[in-house]
Amino acid sequence: MLTKIYFCVTIHRMFRFNNDYNQGAHSAVLNGLVKSNDESFPGYGVDEVCDAAAKAILKYTGGVNAQVHFLVGGTQTNALVISMALRSIESVLCAKTGHIAVHETGAIEKTGHKVETLPDVDGKITAEQIDAACTGCENSCTPDHITRPRMVYISQPTELGTMYSKKELSEISKVCKKHNVYLYVDGARLAYSLGAVNNDVTIADLAQLTDVFYIGGTKCGALFGEAVVVVNDELKPHFRSYVKQSGGLLAKGWLLGLQFLELFTNDLYLKIGKTAVEQAIRIKNAFESRGIKMAVDSPTNQQFVKLSKAQAEYLSKDFYFEREEVFSNGDIMVRFCTGWSSAEEGVAALVKKIGEMPQ
Amino acid sequence: MLTKIYFCVTIHRMFRFNNDYNQGAHSAVLNGLVKSNDESFPGYGVDEVCDAAAKAILKYTGGVNAQVHFLVGGTQTNALVISMALRSIESVLCAKTGHIAVHETGAIEKTGHKVETLPDVDGKITAEQIDAACTGCENSCTPDHITRPRMVYISQPTELGTMYSKKELSEISKVCKKHNVYLYVDGARLAYSLGAVNNDVTIADLAQLTDVFYIGGTKCGALFGEAVVVVNDELKPHFRSYVKQSGGLLAKGWLLGLQFLELFTNDLYLKIGKTAVEQAIRIKNAFESRGIKMAVDSPTNQQFVKLSKAQAEYLSKDFYFEREEVFSNGDIMVRFCTGWSSAEEGVAALVKKIGEMPQ
Amino acid sequence: MLTKIYFCVTIHRMFRFNNDYNQGAHSAVLNGLVKSNDESFPGYGVDEVCDAAAKAILKYTGGVNAQVHFLVGGTQTNALVISMALRSIESVLCAKTGHIAVHETGAIEKTGHKVETLPDVDGKITAEQIDAACTGCENSCTPDHITRPRMVYISQPTELGTMYSKKELSEISKVCKKHNVYLYVDGARLAYSLGAVNNDVTIADLAQLTDVFYIGGTKCGALFGEAVVVVNDELKPHFRSYVKQSGGLLAKGWLLGLQFLELFTNDLYLKIGKTAVEQAIRIKNAFESRGIKMAVDSPTNQQFVKLSKAQAEYLSKDFYFEREEVFSNGDIMVRFCTGWSSAEEGVAALVKKIGEMPQ
Amino acid sequence: MLTKIYFCVTIHRMFRFNNDYNQGAHSAVLNGLVKSNDESFPGYGVDEVCDAAAKAILKYTGGVNAQVHFLVGGTQTNALVISMALRSIESVLCAKTGHIAVHETGAIEKTGHKVETLPDVDGKITAEQIDAACTGCENSCTPDHITRPRMVYISQPTELGTMYSKKELSEISKVCKKHNVYLYVDGARLAYSLGAVNNDVTIADLAQLTDVFYIGGTKCGALFGEAVVVVNDELKPHFRSYVKQSGGLLAKGWLLGLQFLELFTNDLYLKIGKTAVEQAIRIKNAFESRGIKMAVDSPTNQQFVKLSKAQAEYLSKDFYFEREEVFSNGDIMVRFCTGWSSAEEGVAALVKKIGEMPQ
Repeated sequence: MLTKIYFCVTIHRMFRFNNDYNQGAHSAVLNGLVKSNDESFPGYGVDEVCDAAAKAILKYTGGVNAQVHFLVGGTQTNALVISMALRSIESVLCAKTGHIAVHETGAIEKTGHKVETLPDVDGKITAEQIDAACTGCENSCTPDHITRPRMVYISQPTELGTMYSKKELSEISKVCKKHNVYLYVDGARLAYSLGAVNNDVTIADLAQLTDVFYIGGTKCGALFGEAVVVVNDELKPHFRSYVKQSGGLLAKGWLLGLQFLELFTNDLYLKIGKTAVEQAIRIKNAFESRGIKMAVDSPTNQQFVKLSKAQAEYLSKDFYFEREEVFSNGDIMVRFCTGWSSAEEGVAALVKKIGEMPQ
Repeated sequence: MLTKIYFCVTIHRMFRFNNDYNQGAHSAVLNGLVKSNDESFPGYGVDEVCDAAAKAILKYTGGVNAQVHFLVGGTQTNALVISMALRSIESVLCAKTGHIAVHETGAIEKTGHKVETLPDVDGKITAEQIDAACTGCENSCTPDHITRPRMVYISQPTELGTMYSKKELSEISKVCKKHNVYLYVDGARLAYSLGAVNNDVTIADLAQLTDVFYIGGTKCGALFGEAVVVVNDELKPHFRSYVKQSGGLLAKGWLLGLQFLELFTNDLYLKIGKTAVEQAIRIKNAFESRGIKMAVDSPTNQQFVKLSKAQAEYLSKDFYFEREEVFSNGDIMVRFCTGWSSAEEGVAALVKKIGEMPQ
Repeated sequence: MLTKIYFCVTIHRMFRFNNDYNQGAHSAVLNGLVKSNDESFPGYGVDEVCDAAAKAILKYTGGVNAQVHFLVGGTQTNALVISMALRSIESVLCAKTGHIAVHETGAIEKTGHKVETLPDVDGKITAEQIDAACTGCENSCTPDHITRPRMVYISQPTELGTMYSKKELSEISKVCKKHNVYLYVDGARLAYSLGAVNNDVTIADLAQLTDVFYIGGTKCGALFGEAVVVVNDELKPHFRSYVKQSGGLLAKGWLLGLQFLELFTNDLYLKIGKTAVEQAIRIKNAFESRGIKMAVDSPTNQQFVKLSKAQAEYLSKDFYFEREEVFSNGDIMVRFCTGWSSAEEGVAALVKKIGEMPQ
Repeated sequence: MLTKIYFCVTIHRMFRFNNDYNQGAHSAVLNGLVKSNDESFPGYGVDEVCDAAAKAILKYTGGVNAQVHFLVGGTQTNALVISMALRSIESVLCAKTGHIAVHETGAIEKTGHKVETLPDVDGKITAEQIDAACTGCENSCTPDHITRPRMVYISQPTELGTMYSKKELSEISKVCKKHNVYLYVDGARLAYSLGAVNNDVTIADLAQLTDVFYIGGTKCGALFGEAVVVVNDELKPHFRSYVKQSGGLLAKGWLLGLQFLELFTNDLYLKIGKTAVEQAIRIKNAFESRGIKMAVDSPTNQQFVKLSKAQAEYLSKDFYFEREEVFSNGDIMVRFCTGWSSAEEGVAALVKKIGEMPQ
């Protein structure tokens, strides 16, 4: 009976490019969950699987002495890390399009902290902007009447699919250190920047250049889960207490550990990212072959493009994709998003249909 | 390779009675997850599986017009429900041993609310106590200088395994209405009170007598998850926004829905509770056959008993159980907890060993 | 001995135009404090003086059924009113230059609420902007992932000395009602808009068009104190409890009451504003006579003007004024601020010196 | 006209012993305010008067390198100090009757922190209790699930008029250091313990033994105001920013400075306390002469005593006093409170009437 409910047999097959979290888990991850289902574990993430998963991740961090903690979701992780790191008079700087600024229902403000936004170009902010914001605050004639930036939040890749280069990230890191500001990288889609062709920022670089970052699982092959890597010693004490207080300490913590253990065995996480990005680039190329310039020059799994109403309707017959904005002339900005679960035949079909869609 | 890590082959088989969340999920739940793994769903719990699960649960609520929302864990749920329901000057009343008072790292206070505790008897508080507390506040000569109780939090079953009867719950409900105070029931282990022999409080009764309650999944057969049933119309608007803000809105929300759908198909949730309680009662009887009175007269899946040091050491060779308190003479208060995953042979072995343990 | 400390005798007399809170209190207010010093009163603002002050204020509100509460300072008042009125998922809209957005050290965010800013023209925002912001939120495709505007915060006069006309305020009020959003007016300098020549917004209009507003005392003749007028019934229950919780309930509450009683006897509050604005306009005229256009066309007690370095240095020999911004060519944006305590001879001296300052 | 309102001429003169904040300010304080009323000062407490007041206070602290900040009221001060000092997972320990636990409308919880109470004897807690509470937490088997005590809050004198001896305070200080817990002393009525006959705890001792404490002005001769002395270097950075954020930074900050400057010139603060305590002891002696034992053995300005209904009614004809609790037989627990403003003739009249009241 249940089959009828979640095995919707549709005569016409639709392919989903609307996001990277529309299916369960990568088969390796699912198998791990199934195989361990009858085993018993200690609760709350104090178990050997979580330990093994942390070690597996730390193999990628280049010898940095870091803590690894596993949480369930991204908003939870962001609110936890930011509120744990900051005192009440301190604020976090981020891009105007930053996830914490626009898509988390004020979760950061709920913890008592101001999110200060900087104008971004395609999702990215610069070391110069951060420097100017911090310097402005330090030189304020009313220093007691303003919040002090104490953390910079960036995403890798960004909300718009762009990436920071190692040079850019190093400059941001340097300016953060100059102003005694933590650098925090939200890696909800990290696999997809790690897998980008021109990417030169490794996990080891993140561990070297940031104070804390997280490796996304939910959008990269896990059922759910994010792995927070805490590099700066100041942020380590009692981290688990903060997780519990924020409602993020999963009772069956090993479920998180074993998913990340699978993802970080045999470079699965990297492979997932690489494949999805290759698919995205094929989609990008298909649009460009039609003479359509992408709205954002994205080297990762998210591709934004402006379509005419006719084109959007044509593609929507066979594919799910996200509508971002409708313009007055009927044009539509849309997003095609590949991911760990994107079917090869879906990509091929999409490429073909892009070639055939109306002018 | 992973096998070595989480399939620890031990020559001596240990049975776990330390808690009810030490294994993955009931096979039906796991099968549901496996079968749906390659299907695509809309994100954030707005999907047909969650709808179906909500409907399945509402079949048990006796026609009450309620909302059902799915969250990941108990502390998250408690903090969300309490902070969403209360204004900043309002407090929540609970037992001194209440989970929110002692085991959630101040999660409720973190949201800005005072938890006011009442002395309990074996985990339970009474309508009289609540009436007195509310009356005292209403008659205060400094009403502006104190917090106002606006919610009563109780657990069914309680932290100590006891249960409220329908009569007791009705009285509490009545006194809450009298004082314009919400009644919230934490059902983290609800299956185990529903399955108790002398239980007379059904899910329909909870829906009738409370303003909001939650049906626990994590400890009752799910991998994770709690189903919040919102009865009072005042608590319904924008509930999902509060969930998102609290970091509790799971991206792949259908994972929660389908687990609860399985649990509420063919009375699985009730059967799980019944079986585990029967096992617990056999353990209880085994102790009483040895002339040992249980520390708490619990009709549910948690059994508290004081053992001598020798007895505890004897049983700990074959069984995991939780140590609650060590007394100066070496005696130990311990808890044996059965659950949906308790092996029948483990229970039999424990009953046998209790019969053979030293005086 | 004390004389030496706070009666600094300077051979060269400096006049203060740096702000409107650099002296104690208007003589009538001070006399009230002195005369009542040996009388006894009940504590925490439940006294006949506060009652009389509330009634004196309500004579100006045109028959609206409002509560009046007295607080000590503006930031305290803003944080209290906003956090009391909003639920955690709700935000407050204000001008980018709004006091709560830039000069209160994140006090509003500390209470858990997002401050959403709109670009302003000389400190003012429009009904159209508010309408667009609310409509955008209502039409969002991810309504659970964003905060909901529930209050609009404006200042009368604004941070830049401009004022809303009755027409503008009525439009804002209308659009707020349309979107079920509270309108809150910060009247820290209300006397100086009430006293402006072309002002057409009375206290009665504020009472008619807003949900809550405050009448500033600190900058308008009192030692300290702000009078909150709560018009909307939804915001009235337990207001004093919120004041106490926020640390704003003055033990000797009558001190606030009697200051406002004096200010609202014989139209003193209006006279204070009128005199100070006349002085400010004379200063404005003096600059314009020199062919210098004011930076903001302000009809109230704050006058912003860009001076050359030489001009600023010339005037700073005899007058205190606030430097707002230094430009790369050495020019300086400055503010001359009159107030209830501005000495007539100071204004005359300033006007004379403006006439004589270098080109 | 105003005269009629707050100079209530009553034919029958009532004397107020209901609290120590029912009149304006000590004449020296008032004179200071009056004399400085026409002088100009910089805003927000950055002025020479506040500097001088801080220096005057630091003459009493025995050479400790401390910061002094001036705030308006006690609840504001407590919420600020506690929330500034603690991280979100940390709690504050205090007596069950502590002001922050019962009389501040949950102001501490509003800032996100749990107040953990210890049973007290006449308002006092012991080093042993604190040690046990901290040790219990440190040895917890679920350290991540509980809050960590990080501050101890005590009052000197306590809510019940009792005092800590230097020996007791030293022991508490020692145990706090042992557990890395801040010691904070609320001195809302400090003058009245400093002025007690058997007091051996000086301001210098507080500076030596605590991390932060405050010297009460509101109840000890000022119109309003509390002086926070920050001893521990960890608590000093950006203190003013926290004050501003909490709404406690008075625009005309010099008003606070000059009141404390007067109170700490010529030992006025000590004299005020001594006189009021002598009056309280005469009242105490009067009751004891009638064979009535005081409910609390208080050496300070608050005297608690149980009276029969007839006695209470007899005394209430001429005196205001506070009713604390009514017993079922009609007896009443009451408080007589002297203060800096208690009239000598009122004390004499009360002593006489106590001698004449019914048995």
